[in-house]
Amino acid sequence: MNTFSSEKQRYAELAVKVGLNLQEGQQLIIQAPLETVDLVRFVTDEAYKAGASDVTVFYQDNESVLSRLRYAKDASLVNQWLPAGIAQAFSEGAARLVILGDSPNIPDALSSARQAYSAANMAVLTELGTLLKKTASNWSLLAYATPQWASSVFPDLEIDVAVDRLWREIFASVRLDKRDAVAEWDSHNQELFARASFMNERNFDALIFSGPGTELSVGLAEGHIWKGGAKQTLTGIRCNSNLPTEEIFTTPHSHKVNGFVRATKPMVYQGKIISGIQVRFEDGVAVDVSADENQSLLEELLTADASACRLGEVALVPHSSPISKSGILFKNTLFDENASCHLAFGGSYNHCMKPGTESDHLQRGANRSIIHQDWMIGSGAMDVYGVKDDVKYLIMKNGEWV
Amino acid sequence: MNTFSSEKQRYAELAVKVGLNLQEGQQLIIQAPLETVDLVRFVTDEAYKAGASDVTVFYQDNESVLSRLRYAKDASLVNQWLPAGIAQAFSEGAARLVILGDSPNIPDALSSARQAYSAANMAVLTELGTLLKKTASNWSLLAYATPQWASSVFPDLEIDVAVDRLWREIFASVRLDKRDAVAEWDSHNQELFARASFMNERNFDALIFSGPGTELSVGLAEGHIWKGGAKQTLTGIRCNSNLPTEEIFTTPHSHKVNGFVRATKPMVYQGKIISGIQVRFEDGVAVDVSADENQSLLEELLTADASACRLGEVALVPHSSPISKSGILFKNTLFDENASCHLAFGGSYNHCMKPGTESDHLQRGANRSIIHQDWMIGSGAMDVYGVKDDVKYLIMKNGEWV
Repeated sequence: MNTFSSEKQRYAELAVKVGLNLQEGQQLIIQAPLETVDLVRFVTDEAYKAGASDVTVFYQDNESVLSRLRYAKDASLVNQWLPAGIAQAFSEGAARLVILGDSPNIPDALSSARQAYSAANMAVLTELGTLLKKTASNWSLLAYATPQWASSVFPDLEIDVAVDRLWREIFASVRLDKRDAVAEWDSHNQELFARASFMNERNFDALIFSGPGTELSVGLAEGHIWKGGAKQTLTGIRCNSNLPTEEIFTTPHSHKVNGFVRATKPMVYQGKIISGIQVRFEDGVAVDVSADENQSLLEELLTADASACRLGEVALVPHSSPISKSGILFKNTLFDENASCHLAFGGSYNHCMKPGTESDHLQRGANRSIIHQDWMIGSGAMDVYGVKDDVKYLIMKNGEWV
Repeated sequence: MNTFSSEKQRYAELAVKVGLNLQEGQQLIIQAPLETVDLVRFVTDEAYKAGASDVTVFYQDNESVLSRLRYAKDASLVNQWLPAGIAQAFSEGAARLVILGDSPNIPDALSSARQAYSAANMAVLTELGTLLKKTASNWSLLAYATPQWASSVFPDLEIDVAVDRLWREIFASVRLDKRDAVAEWDSHNQELFARASFMNERNFDALIFSGPGTELSVGLAEGHIWKGGAKQTLTGIRCNSNLPTEEIFTTPHSHKVNGFVRATKPMVYQGKIISGIQVRFEDGVAVDVSADENQSLLEELLTADASACRLGEVALVPHSSPISKSGILFKNTLFDENASCHLAFGGSYNHCMKPGTESDHLQRGANRSIIHQDWMIGSGAMDVYGVKDDVKYLIMKNGEWV
């Protein structure tokens, strides 16, 4: 529990000052797995130091989920009043920090209870999510090096060594290896903002990705907006919901993607590895799909609904990003999406589109799907061009901004 | 964590079946210190097995309280929406289990923050308590042998030995040393109910306690009601809010207590021991008070308000009760009040009076005070008489029911 205390204290400070940008007088609600209590205590200290009026922690226990699935007469009868109360608190301006932990290891025998529970839970979370979008309070995610995660990232290391290693990688990825990480994030956010602004000014019609095994034209949605780094809530608070973040990202045109592309890292889906992915697109649709491993799982993913086979996000990340340099597959989107230029199958983000009605958005190229699954295509051998009025401009050379 | 697992599982089962008498389809809200997670998991299992629709656990962390007192700009800004949500859940029929833990060790330097926090917290809890009384959902308290508590009960034992010993005493006190503890509680509840019914039928005017150093007449309030064992909620569920419980208890007359009495065990107040207590009463008031240790603390207690020096409860417990036989001072009222006949300074219970208006209750002998402090007066050398129309009837001889 006491390993890396000073680093965890600085990590907590970063979460409060940069991740949440917690304001004096704000309430903070923390959702955290039981095993992350040491980090929770540091965050609580930092939150009160930053002027939090109240810090409420909801500890999650995977054993409690398993108990429900094993013994409940109806696993779908989930608590409704607590999420409603939390939503109420957000609408009154509370900030929210989620510390990520392991998923429960659910035996196959409990899969029908799991499905009932997941569906009910998802309905509650969707309602909460809708409220969150409306209230748009500042929030942030924070990773924690649990033994289960560490051993999946470093299967060849002993468990304690793996956990230590993963902590070091997490700290480096959020720039805690620098003396003044808060100042680093200020300039990092400015840089991401400048990149996104540049891309918004150019307002390219399409991007072209060109590299080994890849020659892909990704049309951009009409009225697409590039985002990156700190975002502003409706209440005017700038927060970094993702620590780390290295990407700028926008909305591809759901019907204007053509060519072929080879993934440069495995996709992690439902805890499984899908490696060696190659895809050919025609008019936005992934028409030919192959993978060296778990191809059927990929096919299942892309048929989750009618638009799961189209793109909902395109993101640019320099090959020199800290996470890319680590060379590690974290098997966690919060990290892996910051290692490389990437695409996502599935739904697009409304905040990456200029305002409009739903049908207007769809007509301009937004995509709607129940899935949103990132996969990495960038590398040190990738060139990226912006296309405007049929003229190509080189914007990344060998994986770096030009 | 894994010591006494099978006993803790049985303890959890007892809490669900006897303490709460949890009904099929009921929600359960558990409030528990972080360090009691092993017991919480057993209770969760047993609750779902008993048909709970949902089990929600709120883990408490003393470190979080200390963090607030150390760093918050205003320690009194406590969360309001969560207690309101919990109250809402109770009013909709949720059951409530509180697992008891240690109080935080608050340095003197933080005492002004502590006072601000305590006052604000008390206001929220009082509001919740009022709602709870109205909704009267089934609830129960459950003790947990924390190291801090164990070492205060057994200061001469090594910490692990002390914890083991305290667990054994807890299990014995709730009859888990018997093969079928649930059945034992059925007959125990019936016995307590029969004793209380007997005393209610007799409707004595007063009790006389007679033993070494004690010759005390305790007048009973007009319309007093004896209670004991399982109680019925407004929704008709019989629950044992206190595990263990050995007492039957009622309302003394606040103005009709006369004579002298010597306490047979120390009083524990604010974590301090007040030993060798002797009191002389005149017309309900403790007029002469002495103690071998911490007498000034006792005097402070009895001047907390104008009626703190009068009695609010009188309880009968046979000297042969399991807790009495253990000979241990648990320094915890949940246990110690079940070791011996006892009195309480301070406020009386409305449910121990026949219905009436507030002024009617006061006129009939009920007492109102901000304190309610139990102290033990029974022993194996104590005789107790009931007095009706100036006739004395022996009801306990040498500390046992006759």
